[in-house]
Amino acid sequence: MTQALPLKDLAFKDFARASHERVDSALAHYLPLDQDSTQLREAMRYSLFNGGKRVRPTLAYASALAVASNALNSQAELLDRIACALESLHSYSLVHDDLPAMDDDDLRRGKPTCHIAFNEATAILAGDALQTFAFELLSEAENIDAKIQIGLIRQLANASGVQGMVLGQAIDLAAVDKTINLAQLENMHRHKTGALIRASVSMGATALGASDAQLKALDTYAAAIGLAFQVQDDILDVTADTETLGKQQGADIARNKPTYVALLGLDGARKKAQELHQQALAALEGFGESADYLRALSAYIIERGN
Amino acid sequence: MTQALPLKDLAFKDFARASHERVDSALAHYLPLDQDSTQLREAMRYSLFNGGKRVRPTLAYASALAVASNALNSQAELLDRIACALESLHSYSLVHDDLPAMDDDDLRRGKPTCHIAFNEATAILAGDALQTFAFELLSEAENIDAKIQIGLIRQLANASGVQGMVLGQAIDLAAVDKTINLAQLENMHRHKTGALIRASVSMGATALGASDAQLKALDTYAAAIGLAFQVQDDILDVTADTETLGKQQGADIARNKPTYVALLGLDGARKKAQELHQQALAALEGFGESADYLRALSAYIIERGN
Repeated sequence: MTQALPLKDLAFKDFARASHERVDSALAHYLPLDQDSTQLREAMRYSLFNGGKRVRPTLAYASALAVASNALNSQAELLDRIACALESLHSYSLVHDDLPAMDDDDLRRGKPTCHIAFNEATAILAGDALQTFAFELLSEAENIDAKIQIGLIRQLANASGVQGMVLGQAIDLAAVDKTINLAQLENMHRHKTGALIRASVSMGATALGASDAQLKALDTYAAAIGLAFQVQDDILDVTADTETLGKQQGADIARNKPTYVALLGLDGARKKAQELHQQALAALEGFGESADYLRALSAYIIERGN
Repeated sequence: MTQALPLKDLAFKDFARASHERVDSALAHYLPLDQDSTQLREAMRYSLFNGGKRVRPTLAYASALAVASNALNSQAELLDRIACALESLHSYSLVHDDLPAMDDDDLRRGKPTCHIAFNEATAILAGDALQTFAFELLSEAENIDAKIQIGLIRQLANASGVQGMVLGQAIDLAAVDKTINLAQLENMHRHKTGALIRASVSMGATALGASDAQLKALDTYAAAIGLAFQVQDDILDVTADTETLGKQQGADIARNKPTYVALLGLDGARKKAQELHQQALAALEGFGESADYLRALSAYIIERGN
């Protein structure tokens, strides 16, 4: 049973689970399987339901709550569409990232990647259609302010294209086997994963009519946790076992990919993650209890897998 | 020098050339190369400027003219954005279609395909970013009716995703080496290329505030020329030489791809193209001279390369 919005007054763990259930249920609704379903649609659903933690949807719900904790129900459908669009966009990026010509990964969260479970052509097309699906979801919302709707689409598009996520992936590919410094590493991550995390936070807030000042504070928060997420990923790459990671332990190091651990050492990386967490909390000072889920999310990001 | 809108009162050849120049100039403006340009951006521009005939942008301009021949100038920027978005979407589909795991084509219009000129990973990312770019272009338009803007984005997204173009490509891949009938072949083409051609016509008309009756007539026109385009492609695959095609003559036949010529014979395919042209003209009966470019485009589609 999907928990009704506004998802207030829950322990963080329960809020995260409720957000997860909401977006799973909405994804199944918006992309149904039926008797005429093609392999393309199956591959899209396989990739959407592969055990992801739904961090971006959870961020969007939490950001909306921070802005207007009592008005959430009035925008329930729009928030669900935002959550699904973020997850669909993220999922497409993973499917293409795993392809043989890119990272060539056979496993993702312990399961065969899309091109292994289906085939390479289907994985390319499923990723393509998952990207489009994100924009279909946002453009098909009805009975909402059209200017807000345009703003949401613009935020998602800018975060994910040639100035955002895809640029980050291109920088990442170009950096393999090269020596890069901390500033270059941060620039790569700011685009590759940071842009979509910032969009998650800004889109949730925009849907609830956040003020410019609120959006600015939330963006500072989101930029900090976006980097913290990567720092923690790099830490886990060397400290967690393969089973916990759902992928080969030490894979990034083995590929000569630049990491925070390589540049800062393990202790330095842990200190960096803590600093970013404190920056994120500081950015939320103007918010009351309504931002507690965002605070807990920041803590979760640097504590997961430890 | 780019010709000013409304591009009225030209011979069709001059209108087509003026449309081509307008969209080329707008694409260069919206996706500039600068000193910090990455290989990703270069690959996107390489793919956008590879000698394409700009059929979809030309359709969008012609459709807008059919609806409101005197008001075109007031929507010049929006029409240019639509033209660029259509071409960017089309270009992404070609880049991914040419990949080794898909059609594995080394040449496109006589030039190395994107993954040959750059590399496979860059081609995947360039295609991804070209798709996003289409939605960036439409969502960044300012000073226009937000509801019209949402409608344009929705039309493009629905035409190109899991219910449209990408579904068509998936059906196409599944049909190789299989025997399919005429209805199945039409279903494949209706999605693979027809959906985006219909979106080209509907988006140009929507930008100028077309009535529902106008949109319906124009969609009947667009569906007919979309199929005619494919029929003519299949005819050219067996009648034109490799130099004219810019790709290997007989490539589709050699791959055991189903074609109209294989199902109807060469004469039958030519008759079919003529019938579709007549259907397209009939759909435009309610329009006056303002639709003459659309009429000429339909004739061009079935006459090109002959």
